Amino acid sequence: MAQYYATLHCSQYPRTRVRITSSSLTDSNRRTELNMGSTTKDSSLLGLYAMNGGGGQHSYAQNSSYQRGVIDVANPVIEEGIAAKLDISHLSSTQTSPFRIADFGCSTGRNSFPYIQIITQAIEKKLMAEKGLITQIPEFHVFFNDQLMNDFNTLFRSLPPQINFHAAGVPGPFHGRLFPKASLDFAYCTCALNWLSQVPKAVGDHMSPAWNKGKVHYTGAKQEVVEAYSDHYAHDIKSFLEARAEELVAGGLMALLVPADPDIKSSATSFTTPTEIDLLGSCLLDMANKGLISEQKVDTFNFPLYFTIPQELKEIIERSNSFTIERMEILDNPGKRTLCSAKARAAYLRAVFEGMLTNHFGSEVMDGLFDCYEKKIAAAPHFLDPDNEKSIIIFVLLKRKAE
Amino acid sequence: MAQYYATLHCSQYPRTRVRITSSSLTDSNRRTELNMGSTTKDSSLLGLYAMNGGGGQHSYAQNSSYQRGVIDVANPVIEEGIAAKLDISHLSSTQTSPFRIADFGCSTGRNSFPYIQIITQAIEKKLMAEKGLITQIPEFHVFFNDQLMNDFNTLFRSLPPQINFHAAGVPGPFHGRLFPKASLDFAYCTCALNWLSQVPKAVGDHMSPAWNKGKVHYTGAKQEVVEAYSDHYAHDIKSFLEARAEELVAGGLMALLVPADPDIKSSATSFTTPTEIDLLGSCLLDMANKGLISEQKVDTFNFPLYFTIPQELKEIIERSNSFTIERMEILDNPGKRTLCSAKARAAYLRAVFEGMLTNHFGSEVMDGLFDCYEKKIAAAPHFLDPDNEKSIIIFVLLKRKAE
Repeated sequence: MAQYYATLHCSQYPRTRVRITSSSLTDSNRRTELNMGSTTKDSSLLGLYAMNGGGGQHSYAQNSSYQRGVIDVANPVIEEGIAAKLDISHLSSTQTSPFRIADFGCSTGRNSFPYIQIITQAIEKKLMAEKGLITQIPEFHVFFNDQLMNDFNTLFRSLPPQINFHAAGVPGPFHGRLFPKASLDFAYCTCALNWLSQVPKAVGDHMSPAWNKGKVHYTGAKQEVVEAYSDHYAHDIKSFLEARAEELVAGGLMALLVPADPDIKSSATSFTTPTEIDLLGSCLLDMANKGLISEQKVDTFNFPLYFTIPQELKEIIERSNSFTIERMEILDNPGKRTLCSAKARAAYLRAVFEGMLTNHFGSEVMDGLFDCYEKKIAAAPHFLDPDNEKSIIIFVLLKRKAE
Repeated sequence: MAQYYATLHCSQYPRTRVRITSSSLTDSNRRTELNMGSTTKDSSLLGLYAMNGGGGQHSYAQNSSYQRGVIDVANPVIEEGIAAKLDISHLSSTQTSPFRIADFGCSTGRNSFPYIQIITQAIEKKLMAEKGLITQIPEFHVFFNDQLMNDFNTLFRSLPPQINFHAAGVPGPFHGRLFPKASLDFAYCTCALNWLSQVPKAVGDHMSPAWNKGKVHYTGAKQEVVEAYSDHYAHDIKSFLEARAEELVAGGLMALLVPADPDIKSSATSFTTPTEIDLLGSCLLDMANKGLISEQKVDTFNFPLYFTIPQELKEIIERSNSFTIERMEILDNPGKRTLCSAKARAAYLRAVFEGMLTNHFGSEVMDGLFDCYEKKIAAAPHFLDPDNEKSIIIFVLLKRKAE
């Protein structure tokens, strides 16, 4: 398996959303419309945005080396966290029960499978170390969750040929319930909690003081916009924690790897992911100015993403009251060193955002948009020095309190 | 939900296998090759044959009214079986545990969702009737299994908007283990156990006395061919039962709906599914005679399907020793009355077999093949009178013995 993973590419980005492409969804999309066309649900709630599926040139699978980097740096902290904090007392009395693990926001799996290997090995090690309590290692049942529009076909077909667990896929948004009560022993979510369940309504409402006219994200926007994003983020994380609190057994662990910003002022040459989103937004504005897309289209588009800071996340979790924070630390992402050309940086953003941008602006402007982005990156070479990239990953290990 | 199902089409055929089409698998197939190309596994073991995916003209979803008919006739026997035989004693002591149900061979779900509704309602009714033992209805966790190449994207996107269970997809061949030990409370498998795990090796081996030269199935073939199929079937059912015996809790029920032949001599105008497969095979031979496909291609192709008779199935199950037969009966399939034109009969076979035939003979001959089949059906009008169709469905309700 080590050899298999050696060929994988890396990742920091949200793995919760997937692109609607002609390759994998032609027939299926139509089915979805037939089944759901009469409902009034917001499309974002149906998970119509997702990483680019399949394994082609613009796919997430082929363009997620940045996100893959998180795995390397997360490996030791997850191992240590499990060794120190996993409560196996409930296992000793029910030896035949499987140990159930869920990955929330798995995308097409290439960055998910290595986590499972890390987690199952760490759990086995812990159980072996306390074998007085456990006479046999339980079987692992692993659940891969992502949005309804995720490319589960590619996920399943990418499963390594030899695996030490039983696999299942679970479609649906992770801000709500996805599993029966107290049915999971371990949960994790990596590089996905920076995605909001939807764009905050106020920023798209021209009657609201938070209307974000002429911009597509909160960086450099007015205070009301920043607050609308921040409030929505707090609400989403609360919903996520409430759902997981119901699904996890008492004493169950949850490891989160949350893409975030450092709590420091940035310099003129440093940048974070929101800076990059802002640069992509400036390309959209350029295209509107040239008449390639309408200004109205830009005014009605905002990225449903938020990058928290450590203190803010800590406070949201503490308010939830269902989990104790067992460990929390800031990780740097070595994956940023894999994106050393303007082309690579453009490809990595395209794999993540193309689906949602296509849905709103149409596929015909995608090449032009990402060409513009690549040129802007090339013209501002500080983007190509990874030491200027200040985005962080917050690692949090939570334990479900007993009721 | 009733209204939703009212628009569904029907089914008897195997729902275990899916077609590799350009619509849903373009990128994914390539990924599968990358991951698995170096292995030596027989393609049939990887589940490379499956029902036509998506929702288009030739899809299984749009051409399975025959199979859908089984649901109507199975409904009352499943309800009665659950009412009479479901053992809820293990639930009473663990009230928070979910009730886990698995469908083995779900295809893209249109014929699977109604079964879940029947089964969950029957279980709720049983639990309510014995509410002295159970204080609350458990949550349902439903697992949809099919081959790795099944179109799970369409399955998930076809889930009704309002469901009373948590859903998960499970990829892989059901002749082996797919779930942890003792993790399922109820299993079912409808119209799928007529598919073999692969073509019996001997029938494709020109050195074997069971070589099936000039034919593509066992109907009218020499005794060695029939025995090779029959032996393989017994082996496959044994493997299926052994896997389920491990996965089901003691006392857990399993409902099987098995497409089969009646144990009677057929007349010149009666027919069963094997007769239809034989007719399709005669079209392949015609095409070989015309030079449209090579004779060698026909000699190396055999359908991996077997239609048991009730006594044979009963004996295989009794030999397994892990299950008791709680109920067994023969059902007629009203779905046969939905196929009253040669065109409809050809479309129904095409949705089921096109994937595997395309893999072997190429997509360019499919239109010609099914045109030929349609013409032969039209020329033999006894195929269009449903009363001449003698195929049966065997309903078996099994209970997992306590160890």
